[in-house]
Amino acid sequence: MLKSFARGEIDLDEAQSQIKLQSFRAVGEMAKLDVCRADRIGIPEAILAEGKDNADLLAISLSHLEAAGSVIITRVSTQQLETLLAAKLPEDSELVHNSKAKTVVMRSAKPKSIMGKVGILAAGTADMPAAEEARVVAEEMGCTVLFEYDVGVAGIHRLFPCLERMNDVDAFVVAAGREGTLPAVVAGLVEAPVIGLPVSTGYGLGGSGRAALYSMLQSCSVLTVVNIDAGFVAGAYAAKIARQKAYGQKQS
Amino acid sequence: MLKSFARGEIDLDEAQSQIKLQSFRAVGEMAKLDVCRADRIGIPEAILAEGKDNADLLAISLSHLEAAGSVIITRVSTQQLETLLAAKLPEDSELVHNSKAKTVVMRSAKPKSIMGKVGILAAGTADMPAAEEARVVAEEMGCTVLFEYDVGVAGIHRLFPCLERMNDVDAFVVAAGREGTLPAVVAGLVEAPVIGLPVSTGYGLGGSGRAALYSMLQSCSVLTVVNIDAGFVAGAYAAKIARQKAYGQKQS
Amino acid sequence: MLKSFARGEIDLDEAQSQIKLQSFRAVGEMAKLDVCRADRIGIPEAILAEGKDNADLLAISLSHLEAAGSVIITRVSTQQLETLLAAKLPEDSELVHNSKAKTVVMRSAKPKSIMGKVGILAAGTADMPAAEEARVVAEEMGCTVLFEYDVGVAGIHRLFPCLERMNDVDAFVVAAGREGTLPAVVAGLVEAPVIGLPVSTGYGLGGSGRAALYSMLQSCSVLTVVNIDAGFVAGAYAAKIARQKAYGQKQS
Amino acid sequence: MLKSFARGEIDLDEAQSQIKLQSFRAVGEMAKLDVCRADRIGIPEAILAEGKDNADLLAISLSHLEAAGSVIITRVSTQQLETLLAAKLPEDSELVHNSKAKTVVMRSAKPKSIMGKVGILAAGTADMPAAEEARVVAEEMGCTVLFEYDVGVAGIHRLFPCLERMNDVDAFVVAAGREGTLPAVVAGLVEAPVIGLPVSTGYGLGGSGRAALYSMLQSCSVLTVVNIDAGFVAGAYAAKIARQKAYGQKQS
Amino acid sequence: MLKSFARGEIDLDEAQSQIKLQSFRAVGEMAKLDVCRADRIGIPEAILAEGKDNADLLAISLSHLEAAGSVIITRVSTQQLETLLAAKLPEDSELVHNSKAKTVVMRSAKPKSIMGKVGILAAGTADMPAAEEARVVAEEMGCTVLFEYDVGVAGIHRLFPCLERMNDVDAFVVAAGREGTLPAVVAGLVEAPVIGLPVSTGYGLGGSGRAALYSMLQSCSVLTVVNIDAGFVAGAYAAKIARQKAYGQKQS
Amino acid sequence: MLKSFARGEIDLDEAQSQIKLQSFRAVGEMAKLDVCRADRIGIPEAILAEGKDNADLLAISLSHLEAAGSVIITRVSTQQLETLLAAKLPEDSELVHNSKAKTVVMRSAKPKSIMGKVGILAAGTADMPAAEEARVVAEEMGCTVLFEYDVGVAGIHRLFPCLERMNDVDAFVVAAGREGTLPAVVAGLVEAPVIGLPVSTGYGLGGSGRAALYSMLQSCSVLTVVNIDAGFVAGAYAAKIARQKAYGQKQS
Amino acid sequence: MLKSFARGEIDLDEAQSQIKLQSFRAVGEMAKLDVCRADRIGIPEAILAEGKDNADLLAISLSHLEAAGSVIITRVSTQQLETLLAAKLPEDSELVHNSKAKTVVMRSAKPKSIMGKVGILAAGTADMPAAEEARVVAEEMGCTVLFEYDVGVAGIHRLFPCLERMNDVDAFVVAAGREGTLPAVVAGLVEAPVIGLPVSTGYGLGGSGRAALYSMLQSCSVLTVVNIDAGFVAGAYAAKIARQKAYGQKQS
Amino acid sequence: MLKSFARGEIDLDEAQSQIKLQSFRAVGEMAKLDVCRADRIGIPEAILAEGKDNADLLAISLSHLEAAGSVIITRVSTQQLETLLAAKLPEDSELVHNSKAKTVVMRSAKPKSIMGKVGILAAGTADMPAAEEARVVAEEMGCTVLFEYDVGVAGIHRLFPCLERMNDVDAFVVAAGREGTLPAVVAGLVEAPVIGLPVSTGYGLGGSGRAALYSMLQSCSVLTVVNIDAGFVAGAYAAKIARQKAYGQKQS
Repeated sequence: MLKSFARGEIDLDEAQSQIKLQSFRAVGEMAKLDVCRADRIGIPEAILAEGKDNADLLAISLSHLEAAGSVIITRVSTQQLETLLAAKLPEDSELVHNSKAKTVVMRSAKPKSIMGKVGILAAGTADMPAAEEARVVAEEMGCTVLFEYDVGVAGIHRLFPCLERMNDVDAFVVAAGREGTLPAVVAGLVEAPVIGLPVSTGYGLGGSGRAALYSMLQSCSVLTVVNIDAGFVAGAYAAKIARQKAYGQKQS
Repeated sequence: MLKSFARGEIDLDEAQSQIKLQSFRAVGEMAKLDVCRADRIGIPEAILAEGKDNADLLAISLSHLEAAGSVIITRVSTQQLETLLAAKLPEDSELVHNSKAKTVVMRSAKPKSIMGKVGILAAGTADMPAAEEARVVAEEMGCTVLFEYDVGVAGIHRLFPCLERMNDVDAFVVAAGREGTLPAVVAGLVEAPVIGLPVSTGYGLGGSGRAALYSMLQSCSVLTVVNIDAGFVAGAYAAKIARQKAYGQKQS
Repeated sequence: MLKSFARGEIDLDEAQSQIKLQSFRAVGEMAKLDVCRADRIGIPEAILAEGKDNADLLAISLSHLEAAGSVIITRVSTQQLETLLAAKLPEDSELVHNSKAKTVVMRSAKPKSIMGKVGILAAGTADMPAAEEARVVAEEMGCTVLFEYDVGVAGIHRLFPCLERMNDVDAFVVAAGREGTLPAVVAGLVEAPVIGLPVSTGYGLGGSGRAALYSMLQSCSVLTVVNIDAGFVAGAYAAKIARQKAYGQKQS
Repeated sequence: MLKSFARGEIDLDEAQSQIKLQSFRAVGEMAKLDVCRADRIGIPEAILAEGKDNADLLAISLSHLEAAGSVIITRVSTQQLETLLAAKLPEDSELVHNSKAKTVVMRSAKPKSIMGKVGILAAGTADMPAAEEARVVAEEMGCTVLFEYDVGVAGIHRLFPCLERMNDVDAFVVAAGREGTLPAVVAGLVEAPVIGLPVSTGYGLGGSGRAALYSMLQSCSVLTVVNIDAGFVAGAYAAKIARQKAYGQKQS
Repeated sequence: MLKSFARGEIDLDEAQSQIKLQSFRAVGEMAKLDVCRADRIGIPEAILAEGKDNADLLAISLSHLEAAGSVIITRVSTQQLETLLAAKLPEDSELVHNSKAKTVVMRSAKPKSIMGKVGILAAGTADMPAAEEARVVAEEMGCTVLFEYDVGVAGIHRLFPCLERMNDVDAFVVAAGREGTLPAVVAGLVEAPVIGLPVSTGYGLGGSGRAALYSMLQSCSVLTVVNIDAGFVAGAYAAKIARQKAYGQKQS
Repeated sequence: MLKSFARGEIDLDEAQSQIKLQSFRAVGEMAKLDVCRADRIGIPEAILAEGKDNADLLAISLSHLEAAGSVIITRVSTQQLETLLAAKLPEDSELVHNSKAKTVVMRSAKPKSIMGKVGILAAGTADMPAAEEARVVAEEMGCTVLFEYDVGVAGIHRLFPCLERMNDVDAFVVAAGREGTLPAVVAGLVEAPVIGLPVSTGYGLGGSGRAALYSMLQSCSVLTVVNIDAGFVAGAYAAKIARQKAYGQKQS
Repeated sequence: MLKSFARGEIDLDEAQSQIKLQSFRAVGEMAKLDVCRADRIGIPEAILAEGKDNADLLAISLSHLEAAGSVIITRVSTQQLETLLAAKLPEDSELVHNSKAKTVVMRSAKPKSIMGKVGILAAGTADMPAAEEARVVAEEMGCTVLFEYDVGVAGIHRLFPCLERMNDVDAFVVAAGREGTLPAVVAGLVEAPVIGLPVSTGYGLGGSGRAALYSMLQSCSVLTVVNIDAGFVAGAYAAKIARQKAYGQKQS
Repeated sequence: MLKSFARGEIDLDEAQSQIKLQSFRAVGEMAKLDVCRADRIGIPEAILAEGKDNADLLAISLSHLEAAGSVIITRVSTQQLETLLAAKLPEDSELVHNSKAKTVVMRSAKPKSIMGKVGILAAGTADMPAAEEARVVAEEMGCTVLFEYDVGVAGIHRLFPCLERMNDVDAFVVAAGREGTLPAVVAGLVEAPVIGLPVSTGYGLGGSGRAALYSMLQSCSVLTVVNIDAGFVAGAYAAKIARQKAYGQKQS
């Protein structure tokens, strides 16, 4: 544009106006950042399916797919799933459904560059949905994910072999319900940062993940947390750490 | 020991007993990890001064100083401070007091290896105590800390120059009280992981940092949080990420 | 009556008794005001359908329609809707159903004087029911309503064109769930008063609209709020501001 | 700048760089808006004194005074007040202290244009601090404020003469503690918009203003609320409505 | 027994043993009182049907009917109702179902002495279940019940004729949901004691009757309350007052 | 007035205007009732001293004393007490201070008609302030009050002699902190209505009277409650029942 | 192993490695303890069925059955029950379903040594599920269980004969919903330790077992509690006390 | 008495009256049990000093001392302590003050029979007051108490030697604040019953012992709890278990 102006193809007013417009777009673009998902920093678009009707959900999903090349849909109900499965995707796209995580990923079938390594741990069946949601997003962000979901069920002595197997992961997501002590235990054993993911199990006082969240917040281990059942955030955060570190290593 | 046994210097019983003892120590050592502070992973010993009487506080502080080479004492009252300042430290030790953070660090004066870079942001005076607590621990863990505490007070337009200045930090701690939106804003603008640190400001419903914490947990930015006013954990976690990345870079 | 008395048509006792009666009616009329909906100030009669059985709902709706000329029925279930649709309305009346808002409006088909302009903003599908409820009532109160519901979904950069398009509205309703920051953002950008409408989205701690409400209450923007999902109140309040201003302008 | 470029005084790179810089400033400026106080829309700078130390408070106050021409300091303690009173203000400035509201206003002594009319009501002594805080800010924003604070104490029959006296105000702030019904009563009696201001009185369950806030949120009157004791926001919001209407009237 | 002993018909041991037994029974009888329903003071046996299976419910109901001559079953589901209606009652018994209150009363058809007068008020349809539950128990306790349930719906100006009609009742039960102000209004108007009965209506913060209960507890009217939806207790308490007064009048 | 009109002393306009005025006063008077204390129904004026400054408190107290002939001031601090004791009362007035209840009663020294009998029970020292507040108001309302405050401390076996001594009281106030079971026990033993008065004792979960209040609300005894520490309301309500019954007895 | 080493069958490295391995296992074994169920101390493996899908539940159950010889599955839904009943168990195993407790026990049919005696009390039908869950686990742990579930329903005077019948039990589990006073009553009457088991009955404020739990925690009886509806823990704890005492008696 | 009757020394009326009286006393005595402290089962009288004035506290303490032979006064303030120390005790009595526990024990100097063994564990200084309160009562009940309070501070590896040293205790009290995991860890390691004693440490969400209590309630270890800081109850319960077992052993 400046060149056009220099060449006299557009006049001063036009140039000013175009610059103002660009500023304004920048402002708009800018403002966008303070709210949600910034794809330029590698976090995929995500849609919370819960509470959306089938038609709306499909429309939004397809528009994201087109705009961003991929989209993760979380908390997909059985009925919503049918609608999504029946939908006609753009030609070069694929749809992947994860029944444990209740996620659907739609993506154009481009190869992803793989970098960074994330470890995900959970105690058992009840914690799987949240843990799997974390896994889906971390993999979608290009990380290798090592996971172990029966640390508690088959005996926590399996924790040690697990941790050994995961000794080079860049970040951990540790899902736990009820009293939620597992993340603090892991954070005391490993050097990589640990993200506590409270899971909405447990009944009575402190139930529905509340005791788990409170106890992670009160823990004297060095540990950060996400909201109850927020597998998406936990997975994306872990991937962010892992990718940054991997990128740093490549650079140096 | 096994060699002594092989050489016949100790008998079977003695060998068995020593192995059992070693196992037991390992078990004890192990168990320790699931609770607190693991110095082998670079997090300094810390003591919450609140609620301890002067004599107890001093005794525990000195015993940690001796055992671990350094100790961070947080939430130190004016009265406790006097006791600590009046104490006779071991010969080669120093005591550093931070009046904003209300911390005292005691350490033997060994040079630290510096690595990793942490950015700390806060909106103003009210958020400084928590932010400074984070800074003290991150520096004690050997990180370079860049900070800016008047982002909100002197105008948040200062956020952008700040972020520019901090564009190579490895992790951010962002302190915020009241409605607590700053961490989500920053998380939407930077690539490095952001740790939300809710601060106990604000009155009425959602006051004392509750709205800040809830709103960080509900944020659609990718963000983890620590408990209200938990500057220590936020700073240590950021330093953990920064050190790990720096270490990774050195390795490669 | 006084004239009759002066004329001797009624005696002292009768006059006293009638005055007392009138006083009493005034009192009764008066008392009515401290409780609900005052149609004389332009707010239409409204009925919360939730929890009412079909027959009761219909009866009350028709009695309001007859008494007040119109009635808005909110939170109408599918089953209740059928009953209402099947009902025989008075001759010159019409029934309008809004499926997103789950409202039914019954009104006698008199032309309304249109005055005042209200702007309604929401981030996406999940916030639509509350936002639409606000729109229905504001329109019923004679306001022109400009609205935009995909500010967040299709990218918040659309906020700026929206605000430009809405630059002469008299009041804003801004609906937001989860961490609920949109109302504060808008309140910082526009001169017209902004009413925050928290929406019951979000799960975990601070879910069901709690974080949104808390964060609006804690906001340092100048902003008032209504209860979670209270679209009716938000819309009516915005219309009240808009009508008052429009009326003021006409007057002067 | 474009002219310089057209004249060949700066080259393409320089021009691009300057435009980028300007965009960036716009972005920064922009971002500022989503957080706090927008002076361009007539709301004065305000500082919450609570929790700030004397020196910091004074420094920030003076810097705001200089930058914005005036500043309102709320929740000023006795000790903080002494510091502020002892301070040397810029030459043409004045300091006004309101002991009920616990506010200090510093302003350069410029005449203000007066427009808009706000009514403030409260039941008695206990509600005065919040109500007075609202009055201070509304007056500082150039509104005429009519107020009555003993509606409840001296008998609510005084409400009617009050409302008559206030019959042309553009917006009401109604402060109420305990069960907080006064705002709903007033909202049922007047045409102007009513802002409910819950006050932190009352003990036991629902005490500290909680019952008042809940009951305003549940009220079937058309009413918006601010947080408990948030006199500043209530007053500024009322003034915003009043100024907008007054401005509208002038325009037309 | 003592006479038998005096007559030598029973010996010392036997007498001691019988006295001990009677003491023990007294103790047992005594202990019973600190827990539940004391039929000797005129309150009928009641069973909360909620959560009981059909067979258990029927069995318990019949055993109470037999033991106490009558039983009130509250919160009866449609399915439970069928079981109760199908049951074979003792010969001289009757079963009365109240579909609004969801109660079933089983009683032997003895004439009751009628005394005392209770007034029950509610705002509308949503409050009817709780109000009717109160009515059922008060009538079962032999009181005349005057009631008005559309005070709010058809216009609260009907409150005054109601109160006039009820001007000789001995106690009022006033049911109210949402912000729950009606009981305080009535308590300010009548001399008879008023029992506030909060009803589980309202959504969002303070919903499900919480705001109503809090606001009754905070009310400056002289008023007592029962738990949310506790129509049984409210009705029984009102009847207790009414019966006691009526009994007193008979005596004097 | 009507007579003057009939006599032609005032004209039609004047008559209309006076009637309107009277209506208006009636309305005002009316409205007053829906908020607070209605002296015409025998409840004395009361002032909550907490949070009022000395001068304000004195002024309001004297104005009530003058207007109503008596006033009860509750929760009087030591400092406030000094101000009140030092004040010059109207000539024929007296001031009575109750140090346990922290109340001050000011009244013109007219003989009161005594009627009705109230029983007040509490477990021990910790419950005395609330219980005494209840006693002060009940006595001020002209009731004979029987009380026993060491039922729990000196052994609850004293409950039985107490209840015997109180067997003709018209209403009971039973104060209880911690788990708050005493009111339910008493309600199961006596025929007179029992008002549960939860007291803010107890620490930890359910402390500060919360468990007491919850447990009274959940009790299966027939019992109503007032808010935590609301001795004034409990005492006034009991007196209301007692006076009504006594009045009824006189009548008949 | 040491013997093999002494015999030269394995070399130093091998020995060191095996010892390290054993230590590690010890550590793993150790770590396991800080989380869950320690079968070596006599508490059977338990699985919370709630939220698990049928296939997962069956698989885990069978694997526990195989590993531990028995397993208790709690909160089994009708659908899950069908799956479990249809499953093919190992040859010498049996499956016992308790429909009140909603438990399934699978065990290999070995005779258990019986020792210790546990008493379980509950007020009625609503408390049975929790109480039965406690009974199932206590019996599975080899205790004799005496129980009485209609203490409240058929009249609490039955408490005394019950307690007499249970006068030699080693520990009591007392289940109670609503205001939850029964455990405190029993704890005041018996010498054996009492475990309070709050049950999720009751509606309104303090409902769902909250008042029961709070009131047990506040009780001045000496009493410990488990979480709401946590029959398993209550039963296992009682059995632990009973077994320990019985074992002690055998020893001495 | 019966004998007197038989001998004709007292007549029928007198006999009946005396029996009635005895029954009544039995009832009174009985009723007493359902509330508090039953000294016949070995739990000493206790007084919560908090909130009592000096004179009352002393009077009650002395009356308990006289009646029961000993009394434990908990939560004694510095000022109360002075009063108690200055008091003149009965001749053969002694007063023991524990400054950590803030308890005062007054007892007549009779030798106690010692039986049962209790273990008390805590993590550090902050947990000492609650733990010491537990110790004081357990010792007063005649148990030998083994304790270790720096398990966490000096390294939890000390837990294992501790547990070894305590391997024959009959019951454990384990005090823990913040996330409160220690009781679950211990309950997983030992056979004796463990009582979790949450301590009011920790700030932010879940602070003041809430996270500790919730997490103990949610724990999958078999564990019971007492209220936050309820050292008295925890200690008395542990002693009850220990005494019962010791008594059982003696018997057999």
